[in-house]
Amino acid sequence: MAVYTDVDDDQLAAFLAGYDIGGLAGYRGIAEGVENSNFLLDTDRGRYILTLYEKRVKKADLPFFLGLMQHLAAKGLACPTPIARRDGSLMGELCGRPAAIVSFLQGVWPRRVALSHCAPVGEALASLHIAGDGFALRRANALGPAGWRPLYDACAARADEVEKGLAAELASELAFVEAKWPKGLPEGVIHADLFPDNVFFLGDAFSGMIDFYFACNDFLAYDLAICLNAWCFEPDGQLNATKARRLVAGYAKKRALSPAELDALPVFARGSALRFLLTRLYDWLNHPPGAFVKPKDPLEYARKLRFHRGAASLAAYGIERTP
Amino acid sequence: MAVYTDVDDDQLAAFLAGYDIGGLAGYRGIAEGVENSNFLLDTDRGRYILTLYEKRVKKADLPFFLGLMQHLAAKGLACPTPIARRDGSLMGELCGRPAAIVSFLQGVWPRRVALSHCAPVGEALASLHIAGDGFALRRANALGPAGWRPLYDACAARADEVEKGLAAELASELAFVEAKWPKGLPEGVIHADLFPDNVFFLGDAFSGMIDFYFACNDFLAYDLAICLNAWCFEPDGQLNATKARRLVAGYAKKRALSPAELDALPVFARGSALRFLLTRLYDWLNHPPGAFVKPKDPLEYARKLRFHRGAASLAAYGIERTP
Repeated sequence: MAVYTDVDDDQLAAFLAGYDIGGLAGYRGIAEGVENSNFLLDTDRGRYILTLYEKRVKKADLPFFLGLMQHLAAKGLACPTPIARRDGSLMGELCGRPAAIVSFLQGVWPRRVALSHCAPVGEALASLHIAGDGFALRRANALGPAGWRPLYDACAARADEVEKGLAAELASELAFVEAKWPKGLPEGVIHADLFPDNVFFLGDAFSGMIDFYFACNDFLAYDLAICLNAWCFEPDGQLNATKARRLVAGYAKKRALSPAELDALPVFARGSALRFLLTRLYDWLNHPPGAFVKPKDPLEYARKLRFHRGAASLAAYGIERTP
Repeated sequence: MAVYTDVDDDQLAAFLAGYDIGGLAGYRGIAEGVENSNFLLDTDRGRYILTLYEKRVKKADLPFFLGLMQHLAAKGLACPTPIARRDGSLMGELCGRPAAIVSFLQGVWPRRVALSHCAPVGEALASLHIAGDGFALRRANALGPAGWRPLYDACAARADEVEKGLAAELASELAFVEAKWPKGLPEGVIHADLFPDNVFFLGDAFSGMIDFYFACNDFLAYDLAICLNAWCFEPDGQLNATKARRLVAGYAKKRALSPAELDALPVFARGSALRFLLTRLYDWLNHPPGAFVKPKDPLEYARKLRFHRGAASLAAYGIERTP
């Protein structure tokens, strides 16, 4: 539930004059997304998405995000394409905020993940990793391992308000992943937030991915581990090994995973679970009372973390190491 | 800001199977409307609006509202047309709520009312009144004069929390309009809530009206007085007589106003201001803390009411009584 900024129709018509996409024929605020204000925008020539970047997205990062989408779309990935203004820039200003217009993607994100979704998501993630090759800009992962200790420090004193013993568990997990974090694996552009609400399907076929506002440079296999957490657990908190196998096989169909990358998946999954646990915990402890956006349950990721801690090897994920 | 019910994609696909409008290609919750949950819905054949009726709309009233839209659209009014299901009904059930699909209208509602909007709105209102003729169902105006005293009784004890002296002012106004309410004027279907956010334009041209969920049978000129309050006051609280003249002239171009109807406009405007003051005051005093929807300022309508009380005649509105 979002739309933080209401856009005046006169201001929007003036903003549109900076583009060569026709005149204003309609716009509606979309009740989704928590970082930005998003509108479905119609002109007399087509349909677009208008985004106003609110303060949680750093303006200095926008050239990376918008340039990346442009690069990926040019390489054939089904993702929103930023529309260039008449002056060639991908971004303007509307209501005092940086604003961009991107192409509209058809499709529906799955509210319940079915087994049939997992291979296409793996394939799409590998396609993104391949398409990202050659993109000139770089962005460090602000929410990678180096960012977790500051988050932990900000939450530790109050973590036990959410669950008794959570602070000690977090300290121990953080020490583990800091010590065991892999080195020297293939890196590239990762999505870093490829949850179901960012992946569209038409029927059972992948139709597009959106929301590149956490994208950055990091280990490619770490991105797969994020998807493992986001797509392969059941509501009862158990890993569905069939889903995991399909996800990884779908990925490997497009981009081969080295034995070292496969071996790294369990620790990447453990780190990824810790990352979402920490950010959700931070939001849970710090959201203003009465805020529009209901914070997500941090304990969902505590349960996933505990699964990973108990998993002895890749076999626990249903994944075989043989090529 | 709305969308109270999140709709599962599988449930929606099953609901769509009851219609002959193609397969699901996308849907997004719209962040507007305060009574219902609204979604922009795409199928592989076209675009629609999906509405789930939340508890503020009585299910027994839906045949009136949906039948009215169907009747008006068939008469050529630019308004949403309910799409019939395969079984012929205009309404189904989704997520445990009554739900309907209507046609999509292009256009933009004006965030700031310009003089150029007023004549087209008057014309559109008259077109609605003419098109409503012959609609078989009837619905009493629950928020007409008979409904104001119960609202007053529910608010009176706390009205002075909003402004000192407001309770006494409301009592006096209520007695006035009850005594002076006109009788025997032309009646028909009225929109009863034709505020700027319910009227779409493409450029300066009227392109459609929406939100018939207050529609009912009442005096036609009372509907014009509602528009006078909603469209012809400036942000400083003063009536813009030029806007009022344009609104009434636009209306009269399509449907002649009798001298008796013109004479009734000041008391209708006074009653209409009292109606919105009372409902806003009720919502202001009774909205739950932390609710998504910020209640509208009741005092905006107290100021309009005071203008009407001070207006000696039609001339104060810039309106001439000559035909």
